[in-house]
Amino acid sequence: MTYCVGIKLNAGLVFLSDSRTNAGVDHISTFRKMIVYERANDRFMVLLTAGNLSISQSVREILQVEQLKDPDGEPITIWNARSMFDAARVLGQAVRRVYDRDAEALKNAGVEFNISLVFGGQIKGEGMRLFQVYSAGNFIEATLETPYFQIGESKYGKPVLDRVITPDTPLDEAAKCALVSMDSTMKSNLSVGPPLDLVEYEVNRFQSDKIVCIDMANPYYRMLHSSWGQKLREVFDSLEDPVWDDTHTDTPLKVPTAVNKPLKKISRPEEKLI
Amino acid sequence: MTYCVGIKLNAGLVFLSDSRTNAGVDHISTFRKMIVYERANDRFMVLLTAGNLSISQSVREILQVEQLKDPDGEPITIWNARSMFDAARVLGQAVRRVYDRDAEALKNAGVEFNISLVFGGQIKGEGMRLFQVYSAGNFIEATLETPYFQIGESKYGKPVLDRVITPDTPLDEAAKCALVSMDSTMKSNLSVGPPLDLVEYEVNRFQSDKIVCIDMANPYYRMLHSSWGQKLREVFDSLEDPVWDDTHTDTPLKVPTAVNKPLKKISRPEEKLI
Repeated sequence: MTYCVGIKLNAGLVFLSDSRTNAGVDHISTFRKMIVYERANDRFMVLLTAGNLSISQSVREILQVEQLKDPDGEPITIWNARSMFDAARVLGQAVRRVYDRDAEALKNAGVEFNISLVFGGQIKGEGMRLFQVYSAGNFIEATLETPYFQIGESKYGKPVLDRVITPDTPLDEAAKCALVSMDSTMKSNLSVGPPLDLVEYEVNRFQSDKIVCIDMANPYYRMLHSSWGQKLREVFDSLEDPVWDDTHTDTPLKVPTAVNKPLKKISRPEEKLI
Repeated sequence: MTYCVGIKLNAGLVFLSDSRTNAGVDHISTFRKMIVYERANDRFMVLLTAGNLSISQSVREILQVEQLKDPDGEPITIWNARSMFDAARVLGQAVRRVYDRDAEALKNAGVEFNISLVFGGQIKGEGMRLFQVYSAGNFIEATLETPYFQIGESKYGKPVLDRVITPDTPLDEAAKCALVSMDSTMKSNLSVGPPLDLVEYEVNRFQSDKIVCIDMANPYYRMLHSSWGQKLREVFDSLEDPVWDDTHTDTPLKVPTAVNKPLKKISRPEEKLI
């Protein structure tokens, strides 16, 4: 599988991807799932891919040459699009092109046409934008209320994003949060693994040098991994264990006034629940 | 959906379940997913159910009267089984009985025969045992290495269980961990919701009064919910943000000696990744 996250903040964008690919558990490989498109002073775009690797790679390959026509019949590509919306349309078109070419053969082989993409960046003349693109080539855009998108094995790492990320979160802090989210995912799911690719993009820069490949020997990641695990455990230990009655605590687990009664026990075969 | 967890420790067993059921997002109801079977001084068993509610309820109903035959032709029920393994076989048989009755009609209606169960407890004469039972009526048993089972929306709450639970974890601490796991799940997934049912069983007691229904006004749960969220945030804030170069930190994000190179940027249409 895969885990990728893209975050849109007032201060910029953060992208993080793992690089484990598996077909079953006995065919595990490393493929990096991020591409950075940059033309300095003009546009900066990042693409994250999850799903069937042959589809992802085909989309990445043809995206470079894929075209849509504008109303005057002029070709639009990701390199001349005037908006990220148009660039996302070109990406959606590339997905549909691969669908037309491969979907039937895949279906005959019992394989679903399965791809999901996160695509974000900034083109000179407008603000930053972040999209999630589906297998049908349709897409949605991140908003103030939903400032991040995840693809792949997203559930393990979602709670910490929900607790931390808002549009006001600073860039480095959001990168830290994405890494913690990735760390939780890698702890609980073997199909997500290193190395990680991380990009930070500052608004209105139209380029970035904050691009790093993080392996398990990376000093910052090691610190984060061990400190987060250890401090999480300290916090957990610092919380009071449940006390069943209210004689010794202000926060008892059982309260006589509770609305919902504890479950009735069944103690004979003929006894009914209701 | 549903989220339930059952944990087997040296000190006893912990079971926790939510009570939200949904068919789509506009048909949300409350159904409790735990049943406690207790005959004091003889056996204590808990069943947690996830999946299609009509299947779960049918299994729960017929489990009371379901029988297998022992080698001498004598009927085995959950009330006279001499081992939890036999009781789990009776449960598996009940699942198969419902399959025989309903699966074809469900299939005709486009509904999958989908149920998963956690079943654990202790019968006098042997130790505690914990099982996960599948739609086919087959089952697996928890071991020292894998001391817990989750059913339903299990991914959000898995990282904290992986970090905390070992066979040596005390009962109350495991209950706290299960509640934190549930709290993370409810934060990120609307289909899991209160009230919660929690049971703690102490080894060799063959009964338990530590059974509570927890709603959002429960003093202990409120304390846990707010303290965990707040302290998690404090821990997160206490971790150093990434520093990109190594001039001001011992744990830089970028290191010159890294094995994996950062991603190459693509800056022209004709440029290739590889």
